[in-house]
Amino acid sequence: MSLEESIKHAYHESVSGERRGDTRDELEEIKSYIRSSNEIRVPNGSGEKLDAINEVLWQFGLTLAKHLPIHTNSCDVTRMPAITKGFMALDVSVCDLVIARGRLGVPGSGSMLVIMDKKGRILSAALSPAHVLHEKSLVEAVRDEMQAALDRIGLVPLFGRRR
Amino acid sequence: MSLEESIKHAYHESVSGERRGDTRDELEEIKSYIRSSNEIRVPNGSGEKLDAINEVLWQFGLTLAKHLPIHTNSCDVTRMPAITKGFMALDVSVCDLVIARGRLGVPGSGSMLVIMDKKGRILSAALSPAHVLHEKSLVEAVRDEMQAALDRIGLVPLFGRRR
Repeated sequence: MSLEESIKHAYHESVSGERRGDTRDELEEIKSYIRSSNEIRVPNGSGEKLDAINEVLWQFGLTLAKHLPIHTNSCDVTRMPAITKGFMALDVSVCDLVIARGRLGVPGSGSMLVIMDKKGRILSAALSPAHVLHEKSLVEAVRDEMQAALDRIGLVPLFGRRR
Repeated sequence: MSLEESIKHAYHESVSGERRGDTRDELEEIKSYIRSSNEIRVPNGSGEKLDAINEVLWQFGLTLAKHLPIHTNSCDVTRMPAITKGFMALDVSVCDLVIARGRLGVPGSGSMLVIMDKKGRILSAALSPAHVLHEKSLVEAVRDEMQAALDRIGLVPLFGRRR
């Protein structure tokens, strides 16, 4: 099954009122898509943020991401800055996967890291509170979000943290 | 300051390249909006889901939510079902706050609970993995998401769990 077929099947279930939640097969499709992604882009973000994301991708045995240097300040004037940043990255690059991190919603709503496929479909995500609340370092927060976004779709790390 | 002023101020910071993350004042605006919400709606969802949400709202000393019975299956054929469900609820009711729970993205991507204000602005949210992974009961999952969505903006429970 492909991701397209998996989605089409779920549409059919929803429309016919037979949908009973996400299935293991659907999770497998998402994991398989992520595992086979060869070009992963992280829009904007400091080098630190990219390093934190790549540390986790490495732990999970996934392809490392590359930096996509675009000016993303404008995303913060949209309603869902992280999602907008993902679309922006998608629209200006050729890649299999975008990992975007930005604000979830209104100012104060904290951050969202989103994993988006090459069509802009949302495969997974993770949230953090505003920095003033959690007081983690940027690197720590991004690493935790990246790990949470992979954990929650059932991916498991193959290696421990690099020193 | 109002939520509008808080957002306008953040826009200005973003556009001028001076934005340095969410501030305590912005969090206060979100919390104040939620605390003063008198009409809260939960679209669709079983009575169980509403009860779980209300248990947490009660713990936090907030107004209890009312059920908004609308057919939300169609949301599942959109790209962000939970967000779509929130907008749908907003567009067919008069309320201060919508609390919508649905799928985050593609089938398999797990669930999202979103807190949306009367203009459709996203104030907070929480995510859960697919049920087949966490194996929590629906009530437990919704309760945990509701609590997480309030915790992450710095709201604190006033009372313990009801027996």
